[in-house]
Amino acid sequence: MEIYTLTPNPVHTISKLIFGDSWDDLRHFLPGKPVILVTDSTVYRLYESYFTSYPCVITEPGENNKQLENVQFILNQLLEFGADRSSLLLAIGGGVVGDMGGLAASLYMRGISFGYVPTTLLAMTDASIGGKTAVNLGTWKNIIGTFTQPEFVYILPQFLATQSDRDFCSGMAEIIKHAFIGIPEAISYIRESHQEIWSRKSETLFSLIKQSVLYKSAVVEQDEKELGLRAILNFGHTFGHAIEEEGRYTHGESVALGMMLAARISEIHCGLSPAVTHELKSLLQRFSLPVEEFPSSDQLMHNIRKDKKKSGNHIRFVYLTSPGHPRVELSSFELLESYLHKILPI
Amino acid sequence: MEIYTLTPNPVHTISKLIFGDSWDDLRHFLPGKPVILVTDSTVYRLYESYFTSYPCVITEPGENNKQLENVQFILNQLLEFGADRSSLLLAIGGGVVGDMGGLAASLYMRGISFGYVPTTLLAMTDASIGGKTAVNLGTWKNIIGTFTQPEFVYILPQFLATQSDRDFCSGMAEIIKHAFIGIPEAISYIRESHQEIWSRKSETLFSLIKQSVLYKSAVVEQDEKELGLRAILNFGHTFGHAIEEEGRYTHGESVALGMMLAARISEIHCGLSPAVTHELKSLLQRFSLPVEEFPSSDQLMHNIRKDKKKSGNHIRFVYLTSPGHPRVELSSFELLESYLHKILPI
Repeated sequence: MEIYTLTPNPVHTISKLIFGDSWDDLRHFLPGKPVILVTDSTVYRLYESYFTSYPCVITEPGENNKQLENVQFILNQLLEFGADRSSLLLAIGGGVVGDMGGLAASLYMRGISFGYVPTTLLAMTDASIGGKTAVNLGTWKNIIGTFTQPEFVYILPQFLATQSDRDFCSGMAEIIKHAFIGIPEAISYIRESHQEIWSRKSETLFSLIKQSVLYKSAVVEQDEKELGLRAILNFGHTFGHAIEEEGRYTHGESVALGMMLAARISEIHCGLSPAVTHELKSLLQRFSLPVEEFPSSDQLMHNIRKDKKKSGNHIRFVYLTSPGHPRVELSSFELLESYLHKILPI
Repeated sequence: MEIYTLTPNPVHTISKLIFGDSWDDLRHFLPGKPVILVTDSTVYRLYESYFTSYPCVITEPGENNKQLENVQFILNQLLEFGADRSSLLLAIGGGVVGDMGGLAASLYMRGISFGYVPTTLLAMTDASIGGKTAVNLGTWKNIIGTFTQPEFVYILPQFLATQSDRDFCSGMAEIIKHAFIGIPEAISYIRESHQEIWSRKSETLFSLIKQSVLYKSAVVEQDEKELGLRAILNFGHTFGHAIEEEGRYTHGESVALGMMLAARISEIHCGLSPAVTHELKSLLQRFSLPVEEFPSSDQLMHNIRKDKKKSGNHIRFVYLTSPGHPRVELSSFELLESYLHKILPI
């Protein structure tokens, strides 16, 4: 028997994050290569004039369309538009468009250039950063995907003018999450400027999003493949995903409820001050996010046991010891269940 | 406007290449993680006893089954078998199984461990090395895929005992290609030992495959993403793919014809000695590979203009100046067409 060890060259990836002033400025970041746009029918209808200069793939909106079949649709369209290795795929839309566009770009001819213009608050602050793409497989969320850094992300808060209140507030849940795990000074900023945020005042949104995005990108930069540090970003997400699976709440609403559970569990597990839980609750409520309507603990545990992040009978759970100090621990399902029983009806 | 540049950590990948003595030894390379096998129904039938220890996904054999739908079938099976991030997908089969298994492993939960046991000569010498996975999109070959290094490739020549003569000889085309572009001393070795090769004598095959595989892996190591040097491995493949698309010949047979055209073009373009072309032809013929039955030059050029490696009106073509000295040049379709007209009927 003979064994050889091959060590191919490391792959360096660089991603530009641009806080833009206008749609027209985006052109400066489109290189001299063929551009193909990917968007969904909602964004296309609202901003039709933006889509006249390049060929455009239009998908159906909504999380239930985030499936491999629709990525294949995009791939077929790329082929029809004659995309080659020098092409740039520019996705313009919410998280679903970003995920499917990014996955298509990473698969077409084993990877073409990818740029992303997020149009929702959730996508601007969360989905745009991290280099993760994914689609669902049936009802299993985000089980299929790749790690793909976009060449650039162009953030333009003016898109938020047309977002519904419910979806806008859903995005606020992730911003509040970032504040509690890593930017304690942002907690008071959000509280004090919540009126301006509600009225979608440009400068306030700009500074809010920038703070949140730069925090997330700093975490991701240190841990691109989610081997350690990056896990803190899952604060509120273990129970959040279990709640989202029930189909009643949006991602942000589910994360709001998941953070409430994680905070209350952290009070028991590692002495988080109840005042912090109260502050979290009051901030979430200011943005009409749910904070009390939990499924039963049995239903939650049933869903969590299927979580793709589990390792055998354990899962990495994100606790909070104080604002800005999350703590990731491999916790047994039994432990989490015992905490839930102290908080929720069975 | 504000711009930030993010530089995530480089991703290091390491791949082990093992020339094995027996099926049982393979166990030493299976780590203490859950293993799921992927194979096709032909390999499964021939080696059923090998597949008893682990859950096994069985796909349909053949290039026409190398489609995204079948990758999705594998992904669904992984989900059913309860594969998680700690699982290892072990693909056992020819290039189609390796491609689909590798692509599934790179997509499932954004990437799980992947090992590969190639069972055909072509897969052992060619598909096993390079970290490329791909499926076809309709009739477009290998247009969808990823760059994914397997954790290990386990080469066991005993699998070749059950391979058909036609497929075995198809694999010889790539071995002869490697000899002409990079291992001139292998040319005489193949000529002198062609009887032992035909009778599939273990030691001869072992040394033949090792020579070829180590050459390819040395090229790939220097150029994992096919930005430069690696292009030399496409010798005979520009016309080869155009011929393969006609559906009459296997991949290896098409490459044999493609190399004959590339050699004759190289005589005109860069003074390759006709004696080398003659040597190439005689070696290919010893393994029953076609060397003269070309499509018309019009048909060839029609197919080549759709090649995914083209850049506008040009394509990187691999010429040969002498054995061991390939030369890659960006050549216009017009130039290649003019050469074809000197060689083939229109």
